[in-house]
Amino acid sequence: MLQGTASVVFAFLFGLMAIGFVLWQIRNVLEEDTGNEKMQEIAAAIQEGASAFLNREYTYLAGFVVVVAIVIAAFLAWQTAVCFILGAVASAAAGYLGMYIAVRSNVRTAAAASRSLNDGLRVAFGSGTIMGMSVVAFSILGITVLYMIFGGNIDYITGFGFGASSIALFARVGGGIYTKAADVGADLVGKVEQGIPEDDPRNPAVIADNVGDNVGDVAGMGADLFESYSGSIIAAAALGATIATDSLAYIGLPFLVAGVGIISALVGTFLVKTEENAGQEELLATLRKAVWGASGLVLLLTAIVVPMSGLSFRFWFVILVGLVAGNAIAYFTEYYTSYTEAPTQSIAKASETGDATLIIQGLAVGMLSTVAPVLIVAVATLLSIWIGMTAGGGNMTSGLYAVALAGVGMLSTLGVTLATDAYGPVADNAGGIAEMSDLPDEVRDRTDALDSLGNTTAATGKGFAIGSAVLTALALMAAYVGVAQANNPEFTLNLLDPSMVPGILIGAMLPYLFAALTMTAVGKAAYEIVLEVRRQFREIPGLMEGTGQPDYKTCVGISTQSALREMIIPGALAVIVPLLVGFILGAEALAGLLIGAIASGFMLAVMMANAGGAWDNAKKWIETGQMGGKGSDAHKAAVVGDTVGDPFKDTSGPSLNILIKLMSIVSLVFASAFGSGILGL
Amino acid sequence: MLQGTASVVFAFLFGLMAIGFVLWQIRNVLEEDTGNEKMQEIAAAIQEGASAFLNREYTYLAGFVVVVAIVIAAFLAWQTAVCFILGAVASAAAGYLGMYIAVRSNVRTAAAASRSLNDGLRVAFGSGTIMGMSVVAFSILGITVLYMIFGGNIDYITGFGFGASSIALFARVGGGIYTKAADVGADLVGKVEQGIPEDDPRNPAVIADNVGDNVGDVAGMGADLFESYSGSIIAAAALGATIATDSLAYIGLPFLVAGVGIISALVGTFLVKTEENAGQEELLATLRKAVWGASGLVLLLTAIVVPMSGLSFRFWFVILVGLVAGNAIAYFTEYYTSYTEAPTQSIAKASETGDATLIIQGLAVGMLSTVAPVLIVAVATLLSIWIGMTAGGGNMTSGLYAVALAGVGMLSTLGVTLATDAYGPVADNAGGIAEMSDLPDEVRDRTDALDSLGNTTAATGKGFAIGSAVLTALALMAAYVGVAQANNPEFTLNLLDPSMVPGILIGAMLPYLFAALTMTAVGKAAYEIVLEVRRQFREIPGLMEGTGQPDYKTCVGISTQSALREMIIPGALAVIVPLLVGFILGAEALAGLLIGAIASGFMLAVMMANAGGAWDNAKKWIETGQMGGKGSDAHKAAVVGDTVGDPFKDTSGPSLNILIKLMSIVSLVFASAFGSGILGL
Repeated sequence: MLQGTASVVFAFLFGLMAIGFVLWQIRNVLEEDTGNEKMQEIAAAIQEGASAFLNREYTYLAGFVVVVAIVIAAFLAWQTAVCFILGAVASAAAGYLGMYIAVRSNVRTAAAASRSLNDGLRVAFGSGTIMGMSVVAFSILGITVLYMIFGGNIDYITGFGFGASSIALFARVGGGIYTKAADVGADLVGKVEQGIPEDDPRNPAVIADNVGDNVGDVAGMGADLFESYSGSIIAAAALGATIATDSLAYIGLPFLVAGVGIISALVGTFLVKTEENAGQEELLATLRKAVWGASGLVLLLTAIVVPMSGLSFRFWFVILVGLVAGNAIAYFTEYYTSYTEAPTQSIAKASETGDATLIIQGLAVGMLSTVAPVLIVAVATLLSIWIGMTAGGGNMTSGLYAVALAGVGMLSTLGVTLATDAYGPVADNAGGIAEMSDLPDEVRDRTDALDSLGNTTAATGKGFAIGSAVLTALALMAAYVGVAQANNPEFTLNLLDPSMVPGILIGAMLPYLFAALTMTAVGKAAYEIVLEVRRQFREIPGLMEGTGQPDYKTCVGISTQSALREMIIPGALAVIVPLLVGFILGAEALAGLLIGAIASGFMLAVMMANAGGAWDNAKKWIETGQMGGKGSDAHKAAVVGDTVGDPFKDTSGPSLNILIKLMSIVSLVFASAFGSGILGL
Repeated sequence: MLQGTASVVFAFLFGLMAIGFVLWQIRNVLEEDTGNEKMQEIAAAIQEGASAFLNREYTYLAGFVVVVAIVIAAFLAWQTAVCFILGAVASAAAGYLGMYIAVRSNVRTAAAASRSLNDGLRVAFGSGTIMGMSVVAFSILGITVLYMIFGGNIDYITGFGFGASSIALFARVGGGIYTKAADVGADLVGKVEQGIPEDDPRNPAVIADNVGDNVGDVAGMGADLFESYSGSIIAAAALGATIATDSLAYIGLPFLVAGVGIISALVGTFLVKTEENAGQEELLATLRKAVWGASGLVLLLTAIVVPMSGLSFRFWFVILVGLVAGNAIAYFTEYYTSYTEAPTQSIAKASETGDATLIIQGLAVGMLSTVAPVLIVAVATLLSIWIGMTAGGGNMTSGLYAVALAGVGMLSTLGVTLATDAYGPVADNAGGIAEMSDLPDEVRDRTDALDSLGNTTAATGKGFAIGSAVLTALALMAAYVGVAQANNPEFTLNLLDPSMVPGILIGAMLPYLFAALTMTAVGKAAYEIVLEVRRQFREIPGLMEGTGQPDYKTCVGISTQSALREMIIPGALAVIVPLLVGFILGAEALAGLLIGAIASGFMLAVMMANAGGAWDNAKKWIETGQMGGKGSDAHKAAVVGDTVGDPFKDTSGPSLNILIKLMSIVSLVFASAFGSGILGL
């Protein structure tokens, strides 16, 4: 039987295998042709910008990590601090590697697309698999190594999740502010004031803009899912550890599922192949085959390992629930944001009566799109708890454990689902490089086909990100409650406890505060970039004529610095408010805060992400010639919607995923330190 | 000592006194000069429109009330059904009377304003006091009479709150859709297509538009607060009835507070007086004097009646907490939506970079404006529970009772606070009549001064409406839990019960679904009015030349019919979903649903109401000459913001107040019928 350490070693070995795959795939991608000199020059500028961003970001983060690690060591345990640091480093390393490869694959994808669509797909998707598999590998290796070092003490290992969450918040919020600020800054001065086209190399902010795509969609999404992946495993293990009988079996199962998930995802990546002259339909079909093939294999392999764990076979159904729920949420995300479907078309049609009705319709579609994910998560939670309780002999903790396990199941194929998502910005960048290097039109057509496919798979990725964030946050909250109860026998979770309702209300408010702060931050950061781009056009001789060299690095530095500065307050809130509420109002109020924040944040995240995606695609639908096409009044209205949607879908919305997970894990890490609050309620 | 029936009789007598005041005030207002023939003609058209709306609405509602009453009688008790019918009738009667007077005071206010500002204020405010005092009187008389008839059985009397809630939902949602649909329909065809000015009597929808102001701001707000007022008293009495010792004292106290509140509000209305040449400042000061004077008197009188109830004097502090919280929320509502303050000005300034940034900034301000009300309600709830528990010997129910009592305290001066709010649309209408009848400019200036004052006091009214809705809903939820626990000893409220989390998530989603449905309903209803107005311009000979008579009544009928039709689905959801969840998932899940809906609905309601108000006033600020003034690009962007804000602040946002109260009272009324759900979780 594989239990406890044996399961951990099992997962560790698959993690090593994933590392091997990543190294092999890196060699494959880097060996690809890098195109002509012009292409290499542009790519070098993007690479330099990406390095500038990462270096600055990690300088900031190193300070943050050290301070928090000292606080953890002082108030909790040095072991937890070590885990915290390792979680931060592992998440940062996966993000660094993903970005490093993405900004080198873009030019190689452009070159490969000059030969054929299939070659372009192979290179871009290869880059995506490096991101996907390294996220999975770094997470599983980090957790398993710490488990072995600290003799299976899960309390310490929660620090790993906290570290990963902190990096994720910075990557998502800072990255989200960065990408939108650079985008707006580049457009406002370049296109509007100077009258030069988009992606023009004379624009000092153009590289920041291109770097931004990678920052948000590769590093941001990667860190987000790194956190969910780690968090769901840690939450399951932590809950498993509190089950008196068979606790080693309960701890082991999530590792077994993660382990067979890795091999399934690996097999999935090899299913991506197309005929030479494949159309859009076939491209989508091959990516779906990869994801569904991996999911099928996970179900097959878990049917073998669940019995090996010594637990009831019923837990296999929990994994099934998680996988089905993830795919169902992804389906509805696509339904609400794809321009072939009614909701997005209704937004485009509302442009007939102007900007205002388009905005109203977009908000209404966003709000309406919360219904399906909520019902799916509600049913998945209900089923998981029910199966878990019956499988664990009526034990409520085993029911909550099952919620965490459903999250592990949902994310088990992350290696390949994230790959189908992370390859999108590579194709997007490849298109920009093709455009700037005057490659033949057919190359741009091919990268456009890949990019458009990437938009569809990105919707899938967002669905998984939101669904897994909610399940993980719920599981972490349950783990927090377990620890709080163990520390204080008087801890009750009665909804009508004096401090519970205030906690819930404050929790429900935090996502709104967080979204308001991040939305206004984009505006402030964009304004600083506008000033710098204006300065360069004014002070650098020959810049407009193409004889002077724009200072890309300063723009990148300013975007980075202002983005990181602007995210300090929202980021600090996410860590400090749970601690304040826990210490002042007590552990019960904090539980209320968490459930309030999860419920409210879930709605707001789905609403913002889907409204933003739908506005974007409503604009694209009009650009295909509908409603008067480009340049019509309808199109102008759609551009307004798209601009409102930018911070919705790329900054505030996705950051809320992290907010709810980070607050949950902060509470879990510090759970043993809270009492009934200094007010003694 | 005044306990139980004695307190109820006490409140009943003050209710009778309020009826006397209302009758006297009606005579005063109707005796006022009705102006010249032209003015009377326009006023008659608005009166006819209002009757058409009310007749159609009450025909619809009568059917609804009969069906629900039969269901209640069949599943619960005929006595509850009787209470339900009386609650519906009382709320409808107060709304009818308020509207009846408002559409007769508008022309009299215009005539009085021809003489002096003070006369205009006297007539308009007199109309407001009729609305305010009749809401209070009808509510208290209804509840007290039922209490005496049914021998103090509070279970039956909850039906009164249910009836009032149902009418409130129709009045708010139907009225909100009506007023915005008529507004948009009149503008689109009249101003844009036919090029005739606003408020032009040739426009067939102009009367519907003017009727709409009264429908939303008089009847809608009145029904909303009728429900909160009734709900808080019923919730306090219901919770009081479950406290074993001194239950008659607990039941009596809310009636005592309501009784002395009526006399305090009456005294307050007599404090409204100005010097002949009063400026805006003095007008505001006199209204504030009325509200604060009434509040001070309530505190004084409750300091006498609380000891008379036989309960601890500490409950007086709960009333203080309620009054302070109401005024504090009102202060912040005004801060976030007044154009003399930074938040609204920041929205106006965002118009510099176009429509999109103005929308983003407005949404950000709306989200940010949730922070203060949440903290105020959280602190008020915490303090109320804490005081209530210590006053009731550590009993948790007496803590929750105190939350309801804080709501009663907050609304105790409703007679005068509602008056300062409900006079606004009368002044608004008076301005329209002055304009259409070519009265001298100075008359319009005076009505504008009154109207602008009304906008400030409307913010106060909205603050009270939201704050009291949350406290009332929380108290009703607590009462529901009490009944559910009494019926099922196994009922626990553990946050991690299997069905609790799904319940919370579904609850948090409902306000989003509800807001999405009501927002899109406005668009659909407006479209039908556009078709009818176009038809009349096409088919009625001489309409454009002023020789043909437009068919106002058909427009009014269509707005009414489409508004009422569009609100069936959202309205049905509010009643059916809690019942479905209660019967399928069980009483615990329903408790989760209620808290989820209250938390999420509170945020969304504040966000939508304040964003809408701030956009409106940002436009008004620009119209004072800021940012380029009327006709500038900034102004155009502000018009877009204002249009997006219309359904936010007048339809969806305020309806959410009712949604959370209605779902809570439905749950309370049917509480004894729910078990552990057919799933047996």
